[in-house]
Amino acid sequence: LLGRDGYSAKASDIFMCGGASSGVNTLLHIICADENTGILIPIPQYPLYTATLSLLGAKCVPYYLDSKEGWSVDVGTVKDAYENATARDIDVRAIVVINPGNPTGAVLSEKNIKGIIDYAREKRLVIIADEVYQRNVFTKEFHSFKKVLCSMQATDPEKFQHIELASLHSVSKGLIGECGHRGGFFELVGFDPRVQAEIYKFISIMLCPSVIGQCLVSLMVNPPQEGDLSYDQFEEESMAILEDMKNRARTLHGVFSREGFECNVPEGSMYLFPSVKIPPKAAQAAALEGRSPDEFYCLKLLEATGVCVVPGSGFGQMEGSYNFRTTFLAQGTEWADRIVSFHRRFMDQY
Amino acid sequence: LLGRDGYSAKASDIFMCGGASSGVNTLLHIICADENTGILIPIPQYPLYTATLSLLGAKCVPYYLDSKEGWSVDVGTVKDAYENATARDIDVRAIVVINPGNPTGAVLSEKNIKGIIDYAREKRLVIIADEVYQRNVFTKEFHSFKKVLCSMQATDPEKFQHIELASLHSVSKGLIGECGHRGGFFELVGFDPRVQAEIYKFISIMLCPSVIGQCLVSLMVNPPQEGDLSYDQFEEESMAILEDMKNRARTLHGVFSREGFECNVPEGSMYLFPSVKIPPKAAQAAALEGRSPDEFYCLKLLEATGVCVVPGSGFGQMEGSYNFRTTFLAQGTEWADRIVSFHRRFMDQY
Repeated sequence: LLGRDGYSAKASDIFMCGGASSGVNTLLHIICADENTGILIPIPQYPLYTATLSLLGAKCVPYYLDSKEGWSVDVGTVKDAYENATARDIDVRAIVVINPGNPTGAVLSEKNIKGIIDYAREKRLVIIADEVYQRNVFTKEFHSFKKVLCSMQATDPEKFQHIELASLHSVSKGLIGECGHRGGFFELVGFDPRVQAEIYKFISIMLCPSVIGQCLVSLMVNPPQEGDLSYDQFEEESMAILEDMKNRARTLHGVFSREGFECNVPEGSMYLFPSVKIPPKAAQAAALEGRSPDEFYCLKLLEATGVCVVPGSGFGQMEGSYNFRTTFLAQGTEWADRIVSFHRRFMDQY
Repeated sequence: LLGRDGYSAKASDIFMCGGASSGVNTLLHIICADENTGILIPIPQYPLYTATLSLLGAKCVPYYLDSKEGWSVDVGTVKDAYENATARDIDVRAIVVINPGNPTGAVLSEKNIKGIIDYAREKRLVIIADEVYQRNVFTKEFHSFKKVLCSMQATDPEKFQHIELASLHSVSKGLIGECGHRGGFFELVGFDPRVQAEIYKFISIMLCPSVIGQCLVSLMVNPPQEGDLSYDQFEEESMAILEDMKNRARTLHGVFSREGFECNVPEGSMYLFPSVKIPPKAAQAAALEGRSPDEFYCLKLLEATGVCVVPGSGFGQMEGSYNFRTTFLAQGTEWADRIVSFHRRFMDQY
């Protein structure tokens, strides 16, 4: 973390967890008091957040990401969501930001992150920064919330001293993708020691995450350094994997630059989240099957091509817009063309 | 499970989990509705149960195990606990049984298990059988709840058809003790498919437990069979480990057969749970330090001998009785004598 951000971290602020999912579970358990607690969640989002809130009986306070602005966070939209919620007496306690975005594939600018931090400061919101895709960045630089916060604190220590940030990372993504080992951690910045003690107590009930997962976390945050025997090979392999992903992302984006789709340029994570225009006849056919139009489209795509994508309704989407999440993790790109020909046939049929 | 019990199991009834702790967490989450739900918990117990219930805001309905009867379950005591709770309008939904016992080291007889199952049937209680120590059995035979239930169902299918049983097992104990890999599973017997679907949904939020943990579970339930190349060596090593534990259990039990202690013969698991008479002067000294008498005793023991035992107050104990949990996992037995000489000095001092 020192290497990543240029700011040091204390071991006692780092909590190992069984993948970032388990860390999110811990944080939401501690932050949510009752059914009156609200958490600002981006829409579209990775559904872990809404699922955990519904388990806890707490409230999701959705803020919509702006697809016209590369799925960035519009602080004005966050403000509206916050004010709508507090007007209904919801006790909004935290904001979740997923950067790089899942399912959007967006990477937030430093300026955007500063705006979010400043708003969190104003409203005393805990920031939960889901940064599990921090190594999967293609066209922009990744800025961690920790680094941006520390830089703001360096400039104006008094103003930014009381911000509470929890940042999550995982071995499941990045260039290794060792998701089966369930390794992850979160770092707490600026948390009240009494809250931190409760978090420690909470995670102790479940003993420890997988030891192999913990070892992988350690390897991930301590990669080979210049001068190490394995450094050159590690760098070479890492760059090759990253280049490969970048190329596949570009090819896949080419598919969704055609008529009938709208899709942002892939910036990070492993996903594209194109919107697709679904004709009314297809929507009617979907309704007959008791399915949403996007789910109907995705199933037809799967049947026709073997390509499996996830309907946008699982992540949340703007009313009347239909998206799906697709990934460029799969090897090869020949399947991309199959999507194009399927879409043509689908439009002809409906 | 077929090999263990002689009754088959369906894959769809088996749920992998990150150690049994995570399975208990899942089951209690699903069974507990609100602060009015009560779960029958043995006292003394492994504190995972009370901790999880307090997180869920549900109620622990304690039933005391009978130290005079080898820490067996007295169904009359369970009945009293149930009736006391229902009289206070608590909705008692399940009974937890830890067999072999933690911290007690007891192994329940088939007759005792039958009595528990029959009472659960009468009151429509889910049975949560924590059977993680099923391979750590020394002087008695282990009877799984599943096997006993199936035999009762074979005798009287109609009477016992509606019993809901969840049985937990883990790779953390047994003869391998691979606790760092977080591998475990639970089997559901007789659960309503709608409830089972909710359990599946619940565990899906957290994706999967560690893949290595899952592999170890698979190896554990499919050990080498007669005729396999590794069979003889596996059997030999297993028996040697078990014999070794049995011997150390016996040595340690010798220590607590002396004056000042009371301790049941070790039957199973990895623990002894002796009671110790703590003189009033020691209890006063403990109070001055703001500690319970048993905690005070355990700390003094640790300081004087390096032997670390866990105060009984962490597990629950009868009012006025002081216990501690000790394990015979550590190699060697020479440290057992150090406990004897410490105890003598402690009694001389207080």
